[in-house]
Parts: sequence; C-alpha cells; structure tokens
Amino acid sequence: MTFTPLTGVIPPVCTPLTPDGEVDVPSLLRLVDHLVAGGVRGLFVLGSTSEAAFLPDRQRRLVVESVTGHVGGQLPVLAGAIDMTTPRVLDHVASVTAAGADAVVVTAPFYTRTHPAEIARHYRAVAAASPVPVIAYDLPVAVHTKLPADVVLELAADGVVAGLKDSSGDLAAFRQVVTGVRERRGITGFSVLTGSELIVDAALAIGADGTVPGLGNVDPHGYVRLDGLCRAGDWEGARAEQERLCALFGMVSVGDPARMGPNSSAIGAFKAALHLRGVIDCPATAQPQIPLSPDEVEQVGKHLAAAGLL
Amino acid sequence: MTFTPLTGVIPPVCTPLTPDGEVDVPSLLRLVDHLVAGGVRGLFVLGSTSEAAFLPDRQRRLVVESVTGHVGGQLPVLAGAIDMTTPRVLDHVASVTAAGADAVVVTAPFYTRTHPAEIARHYRAVAAASPVPVIAYDLPVAVHTKLPADVVLELAADGVVAGLKDSSGDLAAFRQVVTGVRERRGITGFSVLTGSELIVDAALAIGADGTVPGLGNVDPHGYVRLDGLCRAGDWEGARAEQERLCALFGMVSVGDPARMGPNSSAIGAFKAALHLRGVIDCPATAQPQIPLSPDEVEQVGKHLAAAGLL
Amino acid sequence: MTFTPLTGVIPPVCTPLTPDGEVDVPSLLRLVDHLVAGGVRGLFVLGSTSEAAFLPDRQRRLVVESVTGHVGGQLPVLAGAIDMTTPRVLDHVASVTAAGADAVVVTAPFYTRTHPAEIARHYRAVAAASPVPVIAYDLPVAVHTKLPADVVLELAADGVVAGLKDSSGDLAAFRQVVTGVRERRGITGFSVLTGSELIVDAALAIGADGTVPGLGNVDPHGYVRLDGLCRAGDWEGARAEQERLCALFGMVSVGDPARMGPNSSAIGAFKAALHLRGVIDCPATAQPQIPLSPDEVEQVGKHLAAAGLL
Amino acid sequence: MTFTPLTGVIPPVCTPLTPDGEVDVPSLLRLVDHLVAGGVRGLFVLGSTSEAAFLPDRQRRLVVESVTGHVGGQLPVLAGAIDMTTPRVLDHVASVTAAGADAVVVTAPFYTRTHPAEIARHYRAVAAASPVPVIAYDLPVAVHTKLPADVVLELAADGVVAGLKDSSGDLAAFRQVVTGVRERRGITGFSVLTGSELIVDAALAIGADGTVPGLGNVDPHGYVRLDGLCRAGDWEGARAEQERLCALFGMVSVGDPARMGPNSSAIGAFKAALHLRGVIDCPATAQPQIPLSPDEVEQVGKHLAAAGLL
Repeated sequence: MTFTPLTGVIPPVCTPLTPDGEVDVPSLLRLVDHLVAGGVRGLFVLGSTSEAAFLPDRQRRLVVESVTGHVGGQLPVLAGAIDMTTPRVLDHVASVTAAGADAVVVTAPFYTRTHPAEIARHYRAVAAASPVPVIAYDLPVAVHTKLPADVVLELAADGVVAGLKDSSGDLAAFRQVVTGVRERRGITGFSVLTGSELIVDAALAIGADGTVPGLGNVDPHGYVRLDGLCRAGDWEGARAEQERLCALFGMVSVGDPARMGPNSSAIGAFKAALHLRGVIDCPATAQPQIPLSPDEVEQVGKHLAAAGLL
Repeated sequence: MTFTPLTGVIPPVCTPLTPDGEVDVPSLLRLVDHLVAGGVRGLFVLGSTSEAAFLPDRQRRLVVESVTGHVGGQLPVLAGAIDMTTPRVLDHVASVTAAGADAVVVTAPFYTRTHPAEIARHYRAVAAASPVPVIAYDLPVAVHTKLPADVVLELAADGVVAGLKDSSGDLAAFRQVVTGVRERRGITGFSVLTGSELIVDAALAIGADGTVPGLGNVDPHGYVRLDGLCRAGDWEGARAEQERLCALFGMVSVGDPARMGPNSSAIGAFKAALHLRGVIDCPATAQPQIPLSPDEVEQVGKHLAAAGLL
Repeated sequence: MTFTPLTGVIPPVCTPLTPDGEVDVPSLLRLVDHLVAGGVRGLFVLGSTSEAAFLPDRQRRLVVESVTGHVGGQLPVLAGAIDMTTPRVLDHVASVTAAGADAVVVTAPFYTRTHPAEIARHYRAVAAASPVPVIAYDLPVAVHTKLPADVVLELAADGVVAGLKDSSGDLAAFRQVVTGVRERRGITGFSVLTGSELIVDAALAIGADGTVPGLGNVDPHGYVRLDGLCRAGDWEGARAEQERLCALFGMVSVGDPARMGPNSSAIGAFKAALHLRGVIDCPATAQPQIPLSPDEVEQVGKHLAAAGLL
Repeated sequence: MTFTPLTGVIPPVCTPLTPDGEVDVPSLLRLVDHLVAGGVRGLFVLGSTSEAAFLPDRQRRLVVESVTGHVGGQLPVLAGAIDMTTPRVLDHVASVTAAGADAVVVTAPFYTRTHPAEIARHYRAVAAASPVPVIAYDLPVAVHTKLPADVVLELAADGVVAGLKDSSGDLAAFRQVVTGVRERRGITGFSVLTGSELIVDAALAIGADGTVPGLGNVDPHGYVRLDGLCRAGDWEGARAEQERLCALFGMVSVGDPARMGPNSSAIGAFKAALHLRGVIDCPATAQPQIPLSPDEVEQVGKHLAAAGLL
C-alpha cells in the first residue's frame, strides 16, 4: 500500500457472530460487500466497533483472512492490533499482517499505567517490527489515556506512525495534529482520520483526511455522501446529511441503562440494524454484552425507518 | 485444591526476564524458592506485579508450567487470566489450567465500557467454563471499574467466585465484602485477600483471610512475620513490622516521574531489589517500560540496606 | 486552644433547617447537646456533612455563632472555611473566627485546576492570615484533588497546618502522614483525624488521633464507645462496635439512585434519623437536594431500629 | 435585554488586579474599551477566565458595577454567579443583578456530588428567583459534571434557561443542543454559545450562535474577524484565521508544568499579553496562582509578535 493519505470513508467493520458466538463469515462478507457497494475507500477490521476486545486470537485472524481474501487488494484493509502492551501487540501485528492486513492500528498501552515516554517507546518498538504502516489509535474512553498531540507529531516526523485514528471526541486536540502534520517539515503521506461520527463535517472542514464512523456499517451510503458534500465544499448540504446521520445515531441509546452498559447498547443496535436491513444473519453480540430486548430492537427499527433505511 | 479459605501470604510472583525479553526460568524458580523459603502459603503468577499485561501467551504459559512443575502441589498456584472480555479470558483460563494452575484470577471486563450486570455475566460465564475456582480481582487502577461489593457477594453466594483479591485501596468497601461473606447464608470457603501491601495489619484486623503483597517478592520473610504477628493478636508488633515494610516500599518511587510512569518505577524497583539481593539474574522489565538508571538502582539499594536486606 | 492533638470523636455537625430553608437554631443547639451528651471531644461545624456547600455566608456565620456561644469554650469548635481559592477562603476564615471558631478547616483549591505548589501556597497564605490553627481537609470526592502526603508533611513541619482531616478513604496514604508526623523532627501537636467512618478501628490502630464521623450525628454514643474500645486495646470489641455502625451506615443508600444523587440520600438519611430520634424538628435538606420519600424515611427508621436506636 | 439569541463574540473579560490583589478598575475599563473597539457584541464578566473563582464577593460586585456603569447599556453584560449550590448561587444572582448584569451565567452544582434531577432542580430554583435570564454554563473541567444535553433541552423548552455557554470541548454533545433547540417546539430566543476558542469555525459551522473565547481578551479583533468570515460563508478564510488564533493560543502553555498548574499558566499568559500590549497596568494573578517568570513572559511576547500583535 502506498501511503498517500487515506481519504474518504473507512468504516470499522462490525464482526457478525453466529448464535453460539463464532464468526459468521458469510455475513461478514455480505457486510463487506454492503460497505464496498456504499462507496467506502478502505476497511478497518478489529476495531472497537468490530468487538476486537471480545474476539479470541483465532477469531481475530479469521476475520482478517476472510476480509483480505474477499477484497483481494481492491481497497486497503486496516487491522486493529489491540492489546495491553508492546510484546502482546507485536504478536497481533505478526498475526494480522500474515493474514494480509495492509496497515495495523495500535493504541497506547492500557491496563498498565503509562507515560508519554513509554507511549513513544511503544510505538517505536511496534513500528520497528511491523512489515506494514502503523496507525495510532486514540481512544481515551477505552485506553484511559489521551494520546498527546506532541507525541503523535514527533512519531509522525520520525516516520514511526503513518496516521492517526482519533476517537477522542476532542476536536481542538485533533486540529493540533492536523495543522502540525501540515506545518512540520518531513511529514508526508500521514493520514489524519476521525472516528467522531457525529461531527464528520466539522472534522473534514478543519482538515481531516478521512472518516472512520461506526455508524457507517448501518448507512455507508450516507457517510460517503457526507464525505462527498464536504469535499465539494457544499457545507450546508453536508450539515443536513450529518444531522440526518446524528438522528440515526440515536439508536445507540435504545438499551435500558438499568440493564446494560453503553457498549452493549451501541454494538447491539448496530448489529440489530444490520440484521433488520438484511445484511447479516444474526444480531448476536459477544459475551458478556447484554442482548437488546425485542422492544429495544423495535426502536432500532424506528430509527432506520425515520432515516429512510427500511 | 479444597477451597478452605486461602490464608497467609500469597505473593504475586515477579516474572524475571532475560536481557532480550524472554522468561528467565532459572531465575523464576530461584524466586519461587526464595518465596517458599520465606514461608508463603501460595503463589499468584500472572498478576499485575508479574507483568502479565506484558507477557505474550507463550510466555504466560511457560511461567505457569514452570512454577506448577517446580512446586509440585506443595502449595497452591493461582494464575491470572487477564484479558479484556469473556471470550478472551476463557482462552487464558484454558491455557493456565492446562498448565496446572489451581485457581484463576479474573478482573472485570476492561477496555470496553461495562456495567454491573455485565460484570456478573462475565464471571458466571468464566466460572461455568473453568475447571478450577475463580477468584475475582479488583484493580480499579488498571480496569477503571470498581467491583461493586454487592456483585461480589451475590456471585459468592451463588458459588460463582471462590474469593476476592482486592487491590482497590478502599478498605471500607473491602470490609463490606468481609462482613458480607460472614453474614450471608451459604457462602463457605470464600477467600478474602488484600493486595494493599501498606495496610496489611489493618486488613487482617478487620477480617481479611490473606495477603497478596507485591513487595512480598523482595521481603517475603517480612510479610510472613507480619501475618504471624497479626494472627497472634500482637497488633503493636504488627504495626512496627508493617511500618518497616512501608519504608521499604518507598523504593517504588525511585524512578524519575519526568522520565517514566509509576509502573516502570515500581516493577523496576522490585526487580532491581531482587537482582541486588542475588535472587534473579537480570532486572530487565518488559517493553515499553523504561529501565531505571544506575542512580535509581542505587537508591533501591539504600532502601534494602535501611531495611536490613543487603 | 492549645494544640495538643485533638483526640476522640469530633463529629461534623449537621445543620438543621426549617421547612423554608433557614437555619433552625434551636434544633442545632439540641443536636449539639445530643453530641456533647454522647461524649464527643470537639465539634466540626460547616463541614460537608453540615451542608456547608449549601449555606449562604449569613447562615454559615449564624451556625458558628450559635454553636460557639452555646458551648462556651467547653470543647473546641472547628469551622470549615470551604471555598474555591485563597482570597475567598480568607473571607470565610475572617468570618468564622470572628464568630468564635477555635480552628479553621480548609481544603485544597477546587473548581480551578491546581498543582501541589499552588496547594502549598494556598495553605501558607491562609495560615498567615488566620488567627487560629488551620486544619487541612482532604476530600477528593468533592475537591477532585488528593492532598499529597508530602505536601501535608512539609506544611506540618513548617507549622503551617496543625492537623489533617482525611476523608479520602485511602488508608495507605493516611498512614504515610501518621508515620511521617511521628518521624519528622519539629512536628508537634499535629492532629491526624480520619473522616472514614467505616474504618475508624483501623485508622486508630495505625495511629490516628481522632475521628470525624458524619454518622456520629446519629449515634455519637456508638462512636465514642468505639473510640474508647480502641484506646483500651480491645480490638475485638472495637471491631464488633464498628461493624454495628457499618450496618447503621447502610441508611445512606436508602435514596433511589434513579431519582437523586448520593449526597441527597446520605444527608437526607442522617437528618431523617435525627428527626426520628427526636433531636431535630425538621429533616429538610438544602436546595437542590431531593427530599427522601416517606418509604425511604421508613427504611431509615428500620436501620435505627436494627441498631437499637429507636 | 430582549433575548433574541446572543450572537458574535462575547469574551469572558479578564479581571486586572493591582500588585496587592485589588481589582484595578482603570485597567478593567481600558480592557473593556479594547474589547468594544475590537467589535465584540457582549461582555461576560465573572467567568473562569475572569478568575471569578478567586474573587471575593466585594470584588465580584465591584467588577460588575464598574463594567455595567461603563458600558451604560450599549452592549449586554453577562455575569457569572459561580458557586457550589443553589442557595449560594442565589446570593450571587441577587448581587450581580443589583449591580446591573443583563443575564446570569450559572453552572451545575459542584463540590457536592450531584444528579441530573438535582441539576434541573437547581436551574429551576435559580431561574425562579432571577430577575434576568439564566444561561447554563457547561464546564466539566471545573465542575466535574457534564451538563446532559437532554437536561439543557428540557430546561430550554420550559423557558428556564435562555442559553448555553459550552466549554466542554465536546462538539458532538454541543451539536445535540444546537439541533435540539432548532427542532423542539417552543424554544425561542435561545443562545447556543461556545467557549471552545480553538474550534470556533467548526462550532459556528454546525450552528452555534456565538463565541465566548478567553483568548478574545488578547485579540478581540481576530475573533471578530473569524466570526465575520464564518457568517459570510468564507470557510477557507475562517480556517486560516482560526489557525492563526490557535498558534497564538500556544501562549497558555508557557508556564513550566513542574512549577505551576495549567490555570496559573493560562491566566498568567493572557494577563501578561494584555500587559505587553499596553492594555492593563499589571499582569498579577490572584492567589494561590503562581506568577510567570520573566522568561515565560518573554515567550508570551514571542507569541504576540508571531501573531502580529506587538
């Protein structure tokens, strides 16, 4: 993969499961086709929306192999190598690149308490061992550390990381990276991607290269349209499309908070929506997530209908 | 293993590494001998102090096999099965029990956002699949969720978990479990263990069964003495011994906070101390931890000398 | 007030209110009499349990004047000077000392983001201007900063603060202050007080001087008994009394968490208990706290009955 | 003040102090003139940038009286009523409105632990007692609670709050309020204002009414220009101007983090810049903030020079 910046929509691909918790490969490939048909420019497997935190190693590998085999190089496949620290991440990097991933997506260390110098050391060690480009993944809600902009820029300038996937929700800090990448001598081909699916228009307006929207599983056409409107400079149109998608995103809250956490609700809603739209066979989520109730699934359906997707 | 409550000192065993990051099995076994000679009543491998978060699966398995093979059933070996969610934890449970672990130690889900109902579901699924007892591990500094006392007690009453290793630092919440275990009908053989190495006397005084002190690697005799004084009701003597150990614990802060995080400093100090005491061959810590400088190691030595351990 | 360390029970005194939100002075003085009859050794007015955060300046002053006038120097009256930063705290110090307070209790700065150097500067400025001793108040749940033990000890060694009221729940950090005070040259008469009402036995066992239990409003006799058992070295008896008080403390959770926050529930329960015990005329709490429902008040009564207090 | 939405730039006005900590009224009025000359559309006094958390009541009142007297109704003066809970906030509301404030700006309760139902109750009580409109102030970094969008919208629909000043940095949540205000029946004249000075272009693009930038003290002309470019739909020009202001904002980090907190550094930099630009007589900040060193002030000067402001 030549690393001209990744652009356009690169959704984090949901991992369809069978009722007994195995990867449902036919559904996964139908989902990939649905996304490609929607116009996405790349695929990000084994991200948080993919339930990477829930998939055992053999399932992770199966996902990457299935997807890379299916798309056959038509578009880049990024794969998460999500684990606590350097030595464990290195094993995932070896596994997903052997399975054909075009780039790896790596967070700061978690579970252990960390430090900016340790974060930098982590990325340097991962990059030294990776046969493909490394993209830094900023997800403080999971990792409980914010990737400092100056660390990202230093790593970018040294060619250690080839991009940033920012799901911090902190657009001001994201902008620091966007402008830093442009201004620093020696950074080329760096991809600044936002995972903030509710402010894609704003992120593209300030200079993001591309988008990694979880909701893009449900409505890839919408996000591709949004991306196109932004690139065309039609900010009014973009805003309207983004607001439609924000309303659709309301589905992530259908789960009763007395009964389940926000992860169960959000991933459950995305999968229920994909099931209702006929893309995947079964809306099951991985353990220990709590399944949506029939009433909650019905609410997902109402969100789809309101957005014109049913 | 009959689950009468575990009592006494059950240290989380450090994992000695070679300079190139492999498990140094001879050093590990010398460390085990050092601990057993000190009078410990069990061993906890693959905990946080063991750098479990840094060890790839093959190293984790090697640690458990080496230690269980070496102790040959003379004392129980508990093994951490530290991972983000149920399916991944289940793989570790299978691996460490195949390698001979007598119990598994499991945290709440992390990286993903969770909920008390999901935590309960997680432990129920793990226990259903585990051939050995499951001990709940409360480590909010790593997991970013506190195990709620009522969830622990409900799981204990249902026979799902056989013990709690509490490293939350919250003695009032710990007491709620201690008294709850005693008062609830139907809970038998449950082990309430504290990982708070600076308040072992207080934890035993309020009813803890045993202790899991990281610093016990460095001075197992001290913690065994402390445990004995508490059991004998010599609270003044216990307090003096505990205060000596608290001073020794000061070694965890030798690392310069401008240069490294608290994990690098603490694990680095424990390993440097074991190296200085001649127990292990090499004080290396796993990537991306920052090594202590020679000056910092010298300070570790001063702590040992002040405690009469050099 | 000569500052030999404060010892014994020094409860944070609730502030009874009339139905229209005014300080109910007759009830306040009856509460003081109830506490004094229970054997307390000092009174802490305008603490968190006193709803200091809710009382306008004129009510704060009325509380101090009423209580100091009533006790007439028979026992020391400590008064909170709770506000965001130095200049505002100084105004409270002037007001409460003019009203007769024997010492002021002061937190680190809050609302503004702070730093250890700024915390030290804050206490130095407050102490320089205060005509009475200053006690440091560590309440991270409110202030969102933990008072670092080394800062407290440095201020103690310099005679800036005369004591610590620790409500952090972190007994290991508390112990660092307790032993530091004993070991550092030049610290005399410093009072180390715990606000952790569920582990008073443990705190006294490790060397605390005294106790500041919110629940002491409801059952001062219990806390005085507990303090006496600890001082007599009857740790078994102390543990039993403490566990009785822990069960009584369960009242703080009667409020429905779907309907109110933990502050409304806890302060509401203490006041309901004082009302049910006939000490105060009205259980009203200050705005915007949510009142307990009749059912919730009934549960408070059950806690009192179970503890033999009705 | 008719509450058509506030638009344009409404800076939070710094409070110049004399070397001995008194409000420097002549400097304050020169600062107001500087802002008015820059084209601002309103003034927000007693906000966080104004050091409201540091100003005693008499200084707060002096600030409001001085500013309202000086501007004589030419533009609206909003005043913070920053305190922990309802009864204390009500005193500030009475004081600042007696001093001529056109609206009050009020946070959720802080110091005490709170709950959405208590937040709503708080605003309802404040609004019931306030003679002027109430603007909700969302500042989680200080208050440690995020104002939930649904609570804000419910209060807006009921006419309780007349606007939102959002300094949360969470643009997705901000957007929820922006679109909710537009879509909900019965909300009129509500002002959605952003305090995120580094993403003003993005906030206006998604529908914010106005801007409350702390850096606007230093460069009001820049923010007014930025506002104008956005309103004219010149998003490229807006982005360039915003990026210039982002670079200028770098001054907030001049303070050495080993020596001071971020508040000391940021407020110190703004005041140093105003002093260097000749607007105020003295760059002193309130206690216990740490003053900038001469070197750090020199760096502020370099930021001004680079932005063409010296």
